[in-house]
Amino acid sequence: MKIYGDSKSGNCLKVSWTADFLGRSYEWIETDIMQGESRTPDFLAMNPAGQVPVVVLDDGRAMAQSNAIILYLAEGSSLIPKDAYDRARMLEWLFWEQYSHEPYVAVARFQVRYLGKPVEELEARLVERGGSALARMELALKDAPFLVGDQLSLADVALVAYTRVCHEGGFSLDLYPAVKAWVARVEQALNIR
Amino acid sequence: MKIYGDSKSGNCLKVSWTADFLGRSYEWIETDIMQGESRTPDFLAMNPAGQVPVVVLDDGRAMAQSNAIILYLAEGSSLIPKDAYDRARMLEWLFWEQYSHEPYVAVARFQVRYLGKPVEELEARLVERGGSALARMELALKDAPFLVGDQLSLADVALVAYTRVCHEGGFSLDLYPAVKAWVARVEQALNIR
Repeated sequence: MKIYGDSKSGNCLKVSWTADFLGRSYEWIETDIMQGESRTPDFLAMNPAGQVPVVVLDDGRAMAQSNAIILYLAEGSSLIPKDAYDRARMLEWLFWEQYSHEPYVAVARFQVRYLGKPVEELEARLVERGGSALARMELALKDAPFLVGDQLSLADVALVAYTRVCHEGGFSLDLYPAVKAWVARVEQALNIR
Repeated sequence: MKIYGDSKSGNCLKVSWTADFLGRSYEWIETDIMQGESRTPDFLAMNPAGQVPVVVLDDGRAMAQSNAIILYLAEGSSLIPKDAYDRARMLEWLFWEQYSHEPYVAVARFQVRYLGKPVEELEARLVERGGSALARMELALKDAPFLVGDQLSLADVALVAYTRVCHEGGFSLDLYPAVKAWVARVEQALNIR
């Protein structure tokens, strides 16, 4: 399979981390979103939403949305809990990530690191809601090694993507010690350097 | 089971429509978000994110996030495609809905209908991105009866929730005739009046 991704994007890295963890081989096709490479006619034919990552299977069929792709890749593996309730909790984190974490934590980082905006000039809404998202994770991780049960799952893969680089958007994990320890734990489990 | 939901919220209605379609019985507990009822200590103990809907199973365990809940409820039913690729496409729509549709189409409606903001005063970003989301659906539905394959799936349940009331946020389905026909088809399939 081919992964069209921008290696600056946590959403894209989720897919390669999952594939690496599962021992799935792939060709990575670097797609620079800052240069409009996800908006060309060829790219839009694969994903009309014009977003990376996109995976193209060996038979040519394409799929998009990072969390949908990792759910597809990890089917039947240890990254998806066998228990139905735990699976629902994992899905809860995946949807929460895209609705209540990424739009603040990742967007703040994007504006600071890639658009060059000073941290002090970030919209208050981004800073507040990003902080709330990290505080919610701190609550969940205070007494648990991973987000769902005692084992690494896709919830950890998805949430670590932008949490581990949140300082690039002006957040500090020093305020969230359980999250900080969890980031190290997940990076080790996924062999992320 | 109990569903804590606000009947003005499409995210909450997704859950009751799915339960009704599957013939699952439940107790609906009306939770008025405008009155802060999703921010009380009791509510936050069920869902630290302070969002509706929340489902509480008969054994007392809670789960949140509309799309995670409907995936849990519909497991093994006709609302989830059997084919792995089609399932991934369905998940793609569910994540896209929460990232690229709901934050514009539902938020515009919320501001107009519940906060009383005039349509002309909506942020340009909401109007543009909401329009793009509807245009993307039009493209997908031009030659297909449902979003994934030939059959109703959770993708349709999730997307119809705010699409059917998008006019309340100033959008017009007259610009998107395939979407308009699909809304009627899905409302009929789900017995929504």
